[in-house]
Amino acid sequence: MSGREFFTTRTVAEALAGFRPAHRTAIESVPLPAALHRVPAAEVPSPHSLPGFTRSTVDGFAVRAADTYGASDGLPSYLDLLGAVDMGAAPTVSVRPGGCVAMPTGGSLPEGADAVVMVEYTAETVPGTIEVTRPVAPGAGIVRADDDVATGAPLVPAGRPLRAPDLGLLAAAGVVSVPVHARPRVVIISTGDEVVPPETASLTAGQVRDATASALAGLVLDAAGEPVVAGIVSDEPGALKDKLTAVLPEADLVVVSAGSSVGARDETMGAVAALGDVWCHGLAIKPGKPTLLAECGGIPVIGLPGNPLSALVVFGQVGIPVLWRLSGCETPPARPTTRARLSRDLASAAGRLDVVQVQVRDGVAEPLFGPSALLSVHTRADGYVIIPEPATGLDDGLDVDVTLYA
Amino acid sequence: MSGREFFTTRTVAEALAGFRPAHRTAIESVPLPAALHRVPAAEVPSPHSLPGFTRSTVDGFAVRAADTYGASDGLPSYLDLLGAVDMGAAPTVSVRPGGCVAMPTGGSLPEGADAVVMVEYTAETVPGTIEVTRPVAPGAGIVRADDDVATGAPLVPAGRPLRAPDLGLLAAAGVVSVPVHARPRVVIISTGDEVVPPETASLTAGQVRDATASALAGLVLDAAGEPVVAGIVSDEPGALKDKLTAVLPEADLVVVSAGSSVGARDETMGAVAALGDVWCHGLAIKPGKPTLLAECGGIPVIGLPGNPLSALVVFGQVGIPVLWRLSGCETPPARPTTRARLSRDLASAAGRLDVVQVQVRDGVAEPLFGPSALLSVHTRADGYVIIPEPATGLDDGLDVDVTLYA
Repeated sequence: MSGREFFTTRTVAEALAGFRPAHRTAIESVPLPAALHRVPAAEVPSPHSLPGFTRSTVDGFAVRAADTYGASDGLPSYLDLLGAVDMGAAPTVSVRPGGCVAMPTGGSLPEGADAVVMVEYTAETVPGTIEVTRPVAPGAGIVRADDDVATGAPLVPAGRPLRAPDLGLLAAAGVVSVPVHARPRVVIISTGDEVVPPETASLTAGQVRDATASALAGLVLDAAGEPVVAGIVSDEPGALKDKLTAVLPEADLVVVSAGSSVGARDETMGAVAALGDVWCHGLAIKPGKPTLLAECGGIPVIGLPGNPLSALVVFGQVGIPVLWRLSGCETPPARPTTRARLSRDLASAAGRLDVVQVQVRDGVAEPLFGPSALLSVHTRADGYVIIPEPATGLDDGLDVDVTLYA
Repeated sequence: MSGREFFTTRTVAEALAGFRPAHRTAIESVPLPAALHRVPAAEVPSPHSLPGFTRSTVDGFAVRAADTYGASDGLPSYLDLLGAVDMGAAPTVSVRPGGCVAMPTGGSLPEGADAVVMVEYTAETVPGTIEVTRPVAPGAGIVRADDDVATGAPLVPAGRPLRAPDLGLLAAAGVVSVPVHARPRVVIISTGDEVVPPETASLTAGQVRDATASALAGLVLDAAGEPVVAGIVSDEPGALKDKLTAVLPEADLVVVSAGSSVGARDETMGAVAALGDVWCHGLAIKPGKPTLLAECGGIPVIGLPGNPLSALVVFGQVGIPVLWRLSGCETPPARPTTRARLSRDLASAAGRLDVVQVQVRDGVAEPLFGPSALLSVHTRADGYVIIPEPATGLDDGLDVDVTLYA
């Protein structure tokens, strides 16, 4: 029971603001397809200007804009057709006053031209002569060599997970490998004499298969981390401390899904306290109070409640932001939400954050209740409603934000 | 120009409702960690009840509830302590009238008991005798053997991508491999004489590196598909048809990012029309009008515009729902959104869907303009605003939904 003396409860807001281990994963270069959702450690500057040449954005004719001034259906300009630009090839002809060159969309603008007239406003009434019936201003129908990105300008920012279009822009600039933070290795330890591996075919009364490790691994993957499921540790004194000692050198984050009995919780507390500094033991969150946040040799360690539902709620609220920060991302990506009308009163305690599982049907959020021992309350939910720390509840009929599972 | 005779423009709403190829990927069994975001082809029934035994949800004492009726601080019930239940073990003692058994949270309820009194409402004032100061009702402090899931009841539904907590519930039931739809193989073909591979170090004027294939691969990964980047096809007549013929047998979906010139678009149309049925050629969307939707031998084929920004917008609006449906999921997962105030008027044409890239700062959505040839307009955006088909625009100051990139 020695753990009890360390018992310090904090709010979720305090944990988010104050539990911020400085550890970050190493930087590694990865090829583009593997860089999706990875976090660049620094801005990636463009080695080239993009598109790299003055480029037509329409099918038509490269012209000197001044040659088209005043052109109309009634009084067209007539220009000599001097040649054509081929896709993907440098122009072999230039545009002199009174002349024009046929252009495909995406073609390279020939010397002498400063605009492209769309084919819709032209006709070749006499072979070799193009009739233009609309004037164009200089710059019309083209993008300039550095309109997309200038040489040295950032292609992607630091600290934000890369998205699909970022991969496109990097490819366009010829950047085919990107320096990003390594995926954080999240070691997941399950504890409890009652816990057996999921593949166990038949159980004796009192045994349960390990649900939490598989679900936590999924949450880690969703946050671009690398889950390492490290197995089940018995409640035997010293066993957890030995396991922690073994895994810490290879971990960026350690998550212990603790046994749910008081004795098991104290065992986690004792093992973690022996190896590092406990930041809090007890979190003002429902479900999930028996949560432990600590740092052991610079590595964050999160002790989760024994009930799978509680463990997943706490990891979602407190663990995911820590995980993203390990990869250099201060603001986790936004989650989908919807507005819905609460179907009944929800009670809470001031100073405590409540996470209420809900089903959403036709714009109504229906809370799902049940002991936090029941994981099906979570899997049947479409999302959750937060009762914030200052509130003592939410009223029936209130419009609330539901964070959706996806 | 033979393609022109097939030109049939449809709206995005018509495409979502009407372009619904029947093809679905095969069913395969995958282990739990790989099942995240995969779509079960059928409900997965539970082979066992969960938790499988009557389980204590608190630390305390297993009792017959009737023995605690009327108990209070002033008039406690006194019960004989008959033994203890160990975590993970079947009870070795039963509860007779007037007796109780010590219980850890998660322990298996002994025979004869119908409730657990929390330890907080008890004291062992005399060794071997437990004083109870609160009455409990039958069922208090316990969950029954099938409270979480009954034998044969569904663990997870069909047709919805699996989420992290689903993996936990499957593990709890001992289901360690799940029959799910195979990840759709999405073959991405780039076309255009001007397009060169991203790793090309230096370009001649007129050449561009292939941006679209890398970005599309990212979008496919985000939708739980398997991108197959199939390289660049020249504008030479017949080349695209040969490539399509080669890849169709191994594809669940083919995406052609077409050259952007009129000639290149006609080449795509001709090749696809020769191999299957064109559903539409031209989509009422901005950017992205030169889009082609077709089915070749039962496999959906999407011809995208040549501009990377346009291609990504169209694939997001029309391709992603097709991709999810191939995996058996009719409703793609929700995307994150935020409400923001539009900083200026946006014009559109009735009957056309506009997708406008925006930055969001302090609750204000600022449209980013620029030719759709510029991919940086997309990468600088935080999300997009839809101008729906019936609208002719959106007014400055209007509160709009911004779909956020994440």
